Amino acid sequence: MTSIEPVTLLKLGGSVITDKNQPETLNHANIQAIATILSNHRPKNLIIVHGGGSFGHHHASNFDVTIENGTFDANEVDTIHSSMIHLCNIVTQTLRSSGMAAIPIHPLSIAWRDSESVFHLPSQHILVLLECGFLPVIHGDLVISEKKGATVVSGDEILINLSNSIPTKRIGFCTSTPGVLDSSGNVISQLYASQKQESSITHSSSTDVTGGMAGKIKQIAESNAPVSIFDLPNLENFLKGDEPGTLIR
Amino acid sequence: MTSIEPVTLLKLGGSVITDKNQPETLNHANIQAIATILSNHRPKNLIIVHGGGSFGHHHASNFDVTIENGTFDANEVDTIHSSMIHLCNIVTQTLRSSGMAAIPIHPLSIAWRDSESVFHLPSQHILVLLECGFLPVIHGDLVISEKKGATVVSGDEILINLSNSIPTKRIGFCTSTPGVLDSSGNVISQLYASQKQESSITHSSSTDVTGGMAGKIKQIAESNAPVSIFDLPNLENFLKGDEPGTLIR
Repeated sequence: MTSIEPVTLLKLGGSVITDKNQPETLNHANIQAIATILSNHRPKNLIIVHGGGSFGHHHASNFDVTIENGTFDANEVDTIHSSMIHLCNIVTQTLRSSGMAAIPIHPLSIAWRDSESVFHLPSQHILVLLECGFLPVIHGDLVISEKKGATVVSGDEILINLSNSIPTKRIGFCTSTPGVLDSSGNVISQLYASQKQESSITHSSSTDVTGGMAGKIKQIAESNAPVSIFDLPNLENFLKGDEPGTLIR
Repeated sequence: MTSIEPVTLLKLGGSVITDKNQPETLNHANIQAIATILSNHRPKNLIIVHGGGSFGHHHASNFDVTIENGTFDANEVDTIHSSMIHLCNIVTQTLRSSGMAAIPIHPLSIAWRDSESVFHLPSQHILVLLECGFLPVIHGDLVISEKKGATVVSGDEILINLSNSIPTKRIGFCTSTPGVLDSSGNVISQLYASQKQESSITHSSSTDVTGGMAGKIKQIAESNAPVSIFDLPNLENFLKGDEPGTLIR
C-alpha cells in the first residue's frame, strides 16, 4: 500500500487556461506561463486539476447538460468529453515540454455519482502515480450518474473530493480574480469556515455550468485543508509557501 | 447500489481490428463489420474490451515497455497511451455511427498494479454505465505500477479481471484464428479447466508484448465464466447464444 507525504492540490481555473468568452479558445500564454513557473519550482507531490473554461462548458451548455441534468446520448457525451480531453492534452503536453512528468487522468473513465448524487472518485492509482514521480493532471468532465446518465463534474468538485480522500497539505485555486472580493472589490485576505457562505463574491459573466466562484466557495466549505484563492501572477508565491490572495481556513 | 443482470464480455483482438504487421494500421473493414453485427443484435449488458494490435504494442515494443518492465518517462507513457486512445476512439466512433451508445474507458485513468504486481480495476462506474444503457469500451493500455512506473496491461488481463469483479454470463474472444487449434491445425471444440495449460496453441508471429494466444489461455484459466474463442465470421453466432470455435469451461 502506497504512503506518501501530504499533497498539494492545485486547481487551474478554466478562465485562466482558456478564454471563457470564445468557444474552444485556449489561453496559450497562460498555459505556458504556468508550465514555466511549475518547471522552476518542481513541487513534489503535486496534483493538478483544471477546469473546462470555454471547452467543456460550451458544449455542455449547448446540450443542456449540467451537474443535475444528465444525458443518455453517447454522441453528446463524446462531444463534451472529447473537448475536455483535447484541453487536458494541451495542458499536459505543455507541462511535459517544460520537463514536468504530466500524465492525464480522465474522470469519465473512473468516477461516478450514486443514486444520492454523491460523487465517487477512486484515488489509489493517483497515489501510485505520485510515488512513481509523475504529475497527475485531472480535469472537469462528465461522469456517469445513476438514473441520470452522464452529468457534469466540475474541477472544483474533483479537487475537494481528492482533498478528502488523499492526505492534503494545501489547496490552491489559481483563478482569473486575485481572490475573494468584498463588496468594494478588495481582496479579503482571510476567511474562516463560519464566514465561507457569507462573504460577498464575484460572479463570472461567461458560460459556466458549474457555478463559477459561487460554486467554488460552496465546495471549499467541504474541504479540510487550508485553501488559497489567487490569480496567475501569484502562482509563484503560492508554490514558494506564501499565502497570496484569500486564505480560507 | 447498482445491480444488473450478468454481463457478456467481448474481447476484440488487436489482430482483428488492426493489421498487426503494419505499425498503426487499422482494419477498417473488420471494425465496421463488428459494428454492423453488434448493431443488428443489440446485446444488452455488453462490455467490450479491445487489444492494442499494431497501435499500443508497436510503441511499447520500441520503448521496451512490457507487463513486467515499466517506464518512468512521461513522454513514453503519452506516446503509447495516446496511440491506444486513438484506436479506441476509432472503435467507439464506428460503433456510435452504427447506433451503439459506445463510451470509451481508459485504464491508465483508473487502474494500477500494487507492489505484488496484482492488477486492480475499480468497476463500479462500469455497472452504472451499463445501467444507463451505455456500451463501455475498454482497451489494452498502460497502467501505473508500484515501484515499476507505467507497465503494459493487455486487453485479456482487463477482461479476466472484469469477469471476476462483475457478475459475468459469458466471455467471447473474437480473434484472428477460429479457436484453439490442435497440433494438426484443427479447432478444438471444447476444453476443460484441467486441459487449459496443456493444449497445443498457435503463436502470433507479429509484435505482441502481452503474449498473444499463449498469454490468452493463461489468463482464461483465471476466469469463472465459460469462454468462447472464435473468429470474426462467428461473432454473430456467439451473439445469438451459440458456442462457436473453442468453448472453455
